[in-house]
Amino acid sequence: MTDRSVPVLPPTGPVRPLGLAQVSITGGFWGRRQTVNATATLSHCEAWMERLGWLANFDRVADGTTGPDRPGWSFSDSEVYKLLEALAWETGRTGDPGAEAAIKRLTARIGRAQDPDGYLNTCFGHGEQPPRYSDLEMGHELYNTGHLLQAAVARLRTSGEDDLVRIARRAADHVCRTFGPDGNPGICGHPEIEVGLAELGRALGEERYVEQARLFLDRRGHGTLRDIPLGRAYFQDDIPIRRADVWRGHAVRALYLTAAAVDVAVELGDDELLRAVERQWERSVARRTYITGGMGSRHQDEGFGEDWELPPDRAYCETCAGVASIMVSWRLYLATGDVRYTDLIERTLYNVIATSPSTDGRAFFYANPLHQRTPGRPADADEVSPRAEAGVRAAWFDVSCCPTNVARTLASLEGYLATADDDGLQIHQYAPGAVRAELPGGRQVAVDVETDYPKSGTVRVRITADAASPWTLSLRVPAWAAGATLTEDGRARPVEPGMVEVRRAFRAGEVITLELPMEPRFTWPDPRIDAVRGCVAVERGPEVLCAESHDLPHPGGLDALAIDPLSSPQAVPGGARVRALLPAHPDRPWPYRLSAAPPEHAEWLDVPLRPYHSWARRGPSSMRIWLPVCTSPEGA
Amino acid sequence: MTDRSVPVLPPTGPVRPLGLAQVSITGGFWGRRQTVNATATLSHCEAWMERLGWLANFDRVADGTTGPDRPGWSFSDSEVYKLLEALAWETGRTGDPGAEAAIKRLTARIGRAQDPDGYLNTCFGHGEQPPRYSDLEMGHELYNTGHLLQAAVARLRTSGEDDLVRIARRAADHVCRTFGPDGNPGICGHPEIEVGLAELGRALGEERYVEQARLFLDRRGHGTLRDIPLGRAYFQDDIPIRRADVWRGHAVRALYLTAAAVDVAVELGDDELLRAVERQWERSVARRTYITGGMGSRHQDEGFGEDWELPPDRAYCETCAGVASIMVSWRLYLATGDVRYTDLIERTLYNVIATSPSTDGRAFFYANPLHQRTPGRPADADEVSPRAEAGVRAAWFDVSCCPTNVARTLASLEGYLATADDDGLQIHQYAPGAVRAELPGGRQVAVDVETDYPKSGTVRVRITADAASPWTLSLRVPAWAAGATLTEDGRARPVEPGMVEVRRAFRAGEVITLELPMEPRFTWPDPRIDAVRGCVAVERGPEVLCAESHDLPHPGGLDALAIDPLSSPQAVPGGARVRALLPAHPDRPWPYRLSAAPPEHAEWLDVPLRPYHSWARRGPSSMRIWLPVCTSPEGA
Repeated sequence: MTDRSVPVLPPTGPVRPLGLAQVSITGGFWGRRQTVNATATLSHCEAWMERLGWLANFDRVADGTTGPDRPGWSFSDSEVYKLLEALAWETGRTGDPGAEAAIKRLTARIGRAQDPDGYLNTCFGHGEQPPRYSDLEMGHELYNTGHLLQAAVARLRTSGEDDLVRIARRAADHVCRTFGPDGNPGICGHPEIEVGLAELGRALGEERYVEQARLFLDRRGHGTLRDIPLGRAYFQDDIPIRRADVWRGHAVRALYLTAAAVDVAVELGDDELLRAVERQWERSVARRTYITGGMGSRHQDEGFGEDWELPPDRAYCETCAGVASIMVSWRLYLATGDVRYTDLIERTLYNVIATSPSTDGRAFFYANPLHQRTPGRPADADEVSPRAEAGVRAAWFDVSCCPTNVARTLASLEGYLATADDDGLQIHQYAPGAVRAELPGGRQVAVDVETDYPKSGTVRVRITADAASPWTLSLRVPAWAAGATLTEDGRARPVEPGMVEVRRAFRAGEVITLELPMEPRFTWPDPRIDAVRGCVAVERGPEVLCAESHDLPHPGGLDALAIDPLSSPQAVPGGARVRALLPAHPDRPWPYRLSAAPPEHAEWLDVPLRPYHSWARRGPSSMRIWLPVCTSPEGA
Repeated sequence: MTDRSVPVLPPTGPVRPLGLAQVSITGGFWGRRQTVNATATLSHCEAWMERLGWLANFDRVADGTTGPDRPGWSFSDSEVYKLLEALAWETGRTGDPGAEAAIKRLTARIGRAQDPDGYLNTCFGHGEQPPRYSDLEMGHELYNTGHLLQAAVARLRTSGEDDLVRIARRAADHVCRTFGPDGNPGICGHPEIEVGLAELGRALGEERYVEQARLFLDRRGHGTLRDIPLGRAYFQDDIPIRRADVWRGHAVRALYLTAAAVDVAVELGDDELLRAVERQWERSVARRTYITGGMGSRHQDEGFGEDWELPPDRAYCETCAGVASIMVSWRLYLATGDVRYTDLIERTLYNVIATSPSTDGRAFFYANPLHQRTPGRPADADEVSPRAEAGVRAAWFDVSCCPTNVARTLASLEGYLATADDDGLQIHQYAPGAVRAELPGGRQVAVDVETDYPKSGTVRVRITADAASPWTLSLRVPAWAAGATLTEDGRARPVEPGMVEVRRAFRAGEVITLELPMEPRFTWPDPRIDAVRGCVAVERGPEVLCAESHDLPHPGGLDALAIDPLSSPQAVPGGARVRALLPAHPDRPWPYRLSAAPPEHAEWLDVPLRPYHSWARRGPSSMRIWLPVCTSPEGA
């Protein structure tokens, strides 16, 4: 039985994803965040979009009263669609009637704004607005539509065909008519329509939609769009995706495009395209990705930098790029079964996605730098942040793509935890809950997962259904987890990173225990990452840790911190501590000197480190992940 | 006798500047560049502005045919004015009839576009264009006018009152009427009108202009302009200049504003304002300035970063910010006599200003990064570069502020070389040529300077006029020049950085020789500059050196370079060589590891280093100033 309540459902592949019908999360690290998402973030997003007039934009189109000066950027419609997608997953996850009501409420308003030919956009084509598709480079029309289609996929797969799905179908038909082989030869400056078309095509069995996605993909990279000051690499129109070696330009654009490329490659059996994407993933992950999994080194274009250009302080690491990276890696995992993709998903979940929302789910990081030099100013919960880089979580943004992106990811998180194949279950991410699936021949397999991971590294998988014949339980051992052990029948054995398999005719009540080593560890950067030369990071399990000014004796401490590289980080509850000096550095009129300045004498002290995702939760702070090491460990 | 042919002529101060009438440069490093500027750059700039229609914009206003879609950005008028300023200095320097003809030609076209009330702008206020002063934040109207006034100052001081000066006077009067105490309370988003008004006020004896500059200065910093996504710090409207501690926001804006603040402080005897500017200079130079003297760490807003945020690869270091930094430091020197300002001018001249133009004077760097990771693409001499960061010099830019800014600086360079006081001459920058001045009582003092500095460090100052009574010759010993000697009467003595003085009744023919140590030297960064931790730079005299891919055995060499920090850089003609390893770093799927990666075995080799200002002159290259050092000097 295929669980269709998943964001991505490829027709083929070594494994099939399990969705909200077969996977549950009942608490723990992610369960808490899902609850906050459901009870706070979803209504928070709707309220802000109402307040700012982004919802009323649809009403004004319906009433014929809209104009060129409507509130919001040209992509504000997409926020409504991403919220709808999140709501749809939430109803699938919990059946929440509030979410269901919100879907109906929003769908009705959106539907009234759709033109008879299926075109649906509040920024173009009505009244005095610029004509449809008159600014493909920056107008985001097809981008908005792509998010509508993704919302419809979520609705279709968690509830069934309804008005939202019919709206999306009409919109998709309009896109195929308008941009088909004999139509407008353009593409959208911001990829997203492609991934929406591909999945809606799958969900509705409409091959035309997948074919249109392929057409958009193949049109791109030939200078199809007008050049802009940031260059065509900004929107990946510089090189055809089949020929590119690495991700470049605007990170979210690059990654949404890549997600669609995997969909199209798998759908059409296009191995050349799949290999091109794998090659790009490999080089981008090896040379253009932060230790947090964050992507995007540059503020200027919200984009990837060059190889090894990974500044921690000016890291952009947009939350949405984290969401998009997970979209790409999950598709690649489903296409290949390679655990490197689910490893990166874990890293990104704990260190980008978990970092963005505040504890109360009503404020968000947009950029996720690895080094904050000066504390941000306390955010006003009633204010729209004009900037992505405040150093504090903001209630809403002028460009507010991240809150709804986090919301849809958290609401569909069950869909990224486990897969099945003909021989058993694969569990990729660990959270307390249950996983079940039906194997060929009607064989039911089911397990409960008991863990407080990543608080501890103990993951107990309890079999909850007797099996008449052998099946295979596969558990991901993360790449960082050297020294992990697996215990079955009371016997522990060492296991290597990768997938560890246990195969037999399991009986209900049997417990398999995976023990992941959670001692904090030093992690060293490749010497070619210039910006963190002479520094070390500390990781604990899947979490990257950081030092925060709250925990240092004086505010300038983070500028001067020097870690003893010969010591080891010591575990403390929830984090670690490291041995360090906080020497004073005298101010000089010119910061370049004939001799390397030895630090002034300082005492060794223990500096606490906490998970990066928790930074600035105690108030604005300065913070750093990469910690300079003493060049002379005994100090001056 | 006051030499009025100078860009800045404060009414008071410990020294008075000597100008184009009293200082000559007859060759050498700067003389060659001035010749190229005069024979190539000036006509190059005029030709590009003609070709792009920036000059015809004036004709269209005059003819009543202009509109909102005129060619060029709103600040293109200022390029014409900066070219006029350069041409005016050039006529003052050499009496070049071509430059004189160009001034008349351009002045005539500009004059026809001036409105009867003195308003002069080709982008606002005519036909269907937006109304005058309707976009003070980004419209650059007063900015353009400021450059017109600076051009008029140059004309007035090298030739005399003519149509250009009269046009500027009418424009300045218009500004004072429109923005006076009872007028429009606004300011311009891009400071420049202030420095133009202050100097034109001095040049014409119009105190009203200086007072209007003061009014603009004091209006700023109170949220006078509308907020923008980059924040009000972008245009220094966040904090009143008297209260600020450091430069922030857009670097050129910050520095033009500061230059005006020095003018106003000196003119009005406002010591509080002068001290505020000195404080800002001190902290900005100590914490926000590159080893090249370059300023501006961020591409996003062409702006200063935070303290210690000095990435070499993403350094913006706009050429114009170098010009503006010299404007500020020269004014501060004239106000205080403190040699730290002329030290910074030297550094900026050799490592920012000299870096920008190509050898033929027909292509320019806009941004001046300290690390180029991948070679740029060869520039097309016939193409406008849309971007500031190409890694190669470009013939012209979409935003083309730098070529004309370099041109006006080179054409007026004599004005920054020497000063006089009642007791003698001070020489600050060394170039072959002559300096003369009249001291009180009609005493004529005159010297020739004989040097090929910075090729060698020998500067011979030959007295060319007999003196009846003692006077003081002061020579700047740069801060980097530990070990310098001064020879007089055949006797050498060590001299310390600062000003070295020789006082007596000199006779014509006497020679004073300053010997500056030109051995290449390692320079180490403050440990708080995270982006260059574990690196060293090599300087030689006033020149910062760099390693360039042209000189390495394989293209990826610059990524892996590791200098032996226990060796010393060795002198070679025109540069240095350093002992280094070029180890291979194996590619890994994830660039963060449990152990610090030891480099693979490599042989020691000598890597040549050349002056940074010469980089990419042999074709596109990768390049770096900051060189990683081996953590274990003997290698792996």
